[in-house]
Amino acid sequence: MNFLEERIRKDGIVKEGNVLKVDSFLNHQMDIALFNEMGKEFQRRFEGKPINKILTIEASGIGIACIVAQYFHVPVVFAKKSKSINIEGEMYVAEVESFTHRCKNQVIVSKKFLDEDSHVLIIDDFLANGCALQGLIQIVQSAGGTVEGIGIAVEKGFQSGGRIIRNLGYQLESLAIVESMDAATGEICFREQ
Amino acid sequence: MNFLEERIRKDGIVKEGNVLKVDSFLNHQMDIALFNEMGKEFQRRFEGKPINKILTIEASGIGIACIVAQYFHVPVVFAKKSKSINIEGEMYVAEVESFTHRCKNQVIVSKKFLDEDSHVLIIDDFLANGCALQGLIQIVQSAGGTVEGIGIAVEKGFQSGGRIIRNLGYQLESLAIVESMDAATGEICFREQ
Repeated sequence: MNFLEERIRKDGIVKEGNVLKVDSFLNHQMDIALFNEMGKEFQRRFEGKPINKILTIEASGIGIACIVAQYFHVPVVFAKKSKSINIEGEMYVAEVESFTHRCKNQVIVSKKFLDEDSHVLIIDDFLANGCALQGLIQIVQSAGGTVEGIGIAVEKGFQSGGRIIRNLGYQLESLAIVESMDAATGEICFREQ
Repeated sequence: MNFLEERIRKDGIVKEGNVLKVDSFLNHQMDIALFNEMGKEFQRRFEGKPINKILTIEASGIGIACIVAQYFHVPVVFAKKSKSINIEGEMYVAEVESFTHRCKNQVIVSKKFLDEDSHVLIIDDFLANGCALQGLIQIVQSAGGTVEGIGIAVEKGFQSGGRIIRNLGYQLESLAIVESMDAATGEICFREQ
């Protein structure tokens, strides 16, 4: 088990409906020392890639992305989930469906911050069915940029998102891949990596 | 001028309606080296305070808060703006009105992450009329915790939020306080600190 799998075993809570609550250290309260460990590990896994920008999506991806960015020395852009009056001018827009919130969102990035010279590492906290991630990939492609890799904290390996993204040929690195969870016993099984 | 005021003069864009766009380095694309400078400055300004938690609000406060947290060695909690099915159990809720979006939001923090032992530094990117900030203060008080200080990147000094918060006796530190802006000339005047 790696550091993140250990932390999920220790502090993650399994709920009915295949819900894994990691809100005490990952996506409501955030353990910055843990995020730094994640940054170091992503640096190792994406070594040699010509990454010049990190792209994430609000809200819970932002903290991880900012800490991880310190290991790549690049700026972070976060995609917004709904139109804001403070974003003006030309925007890239992708429509995605949220598994958590069961609604459709528009994922929006200003055209100023992505172009054909963008070599992008996409970072997010969770990967389940992968709709948000597909929206981010779509936006990088609209900009003519390159997705150099995708770094995820926790992947739900029993949902289809990860398989689809790997089948498309992307280097997808998930620090913990949950194969199964049992709400009755609290047991969590991880995929061997 | 300090480092942030210089950056705002260089890359900030003044729009009609007293809108200051800093989306190329602060709240859409994020310059992590700049955030580290902000962390060092907040560390200096809040030196000696027994801070054990940073509280911010989604989405654009999260990146700054996470980088700043590295200078205080404390976890970050971000308040959510609407009810999510992934937050369960008991929550602190405050109702706030957004200046930017012209709508009312519920600001929500899980009761697990704030209590009477919480000594909180509140961090956010912008302070204008201060409604979001008042909601965060209300939540810390509901928890029986202590607001040790408030660190803001950019304050609009010509709006009432900063004055109200300082009148209430809080140590509010804004790294740049805009006194006036002119959309026609692009000129930005900062308050002497």
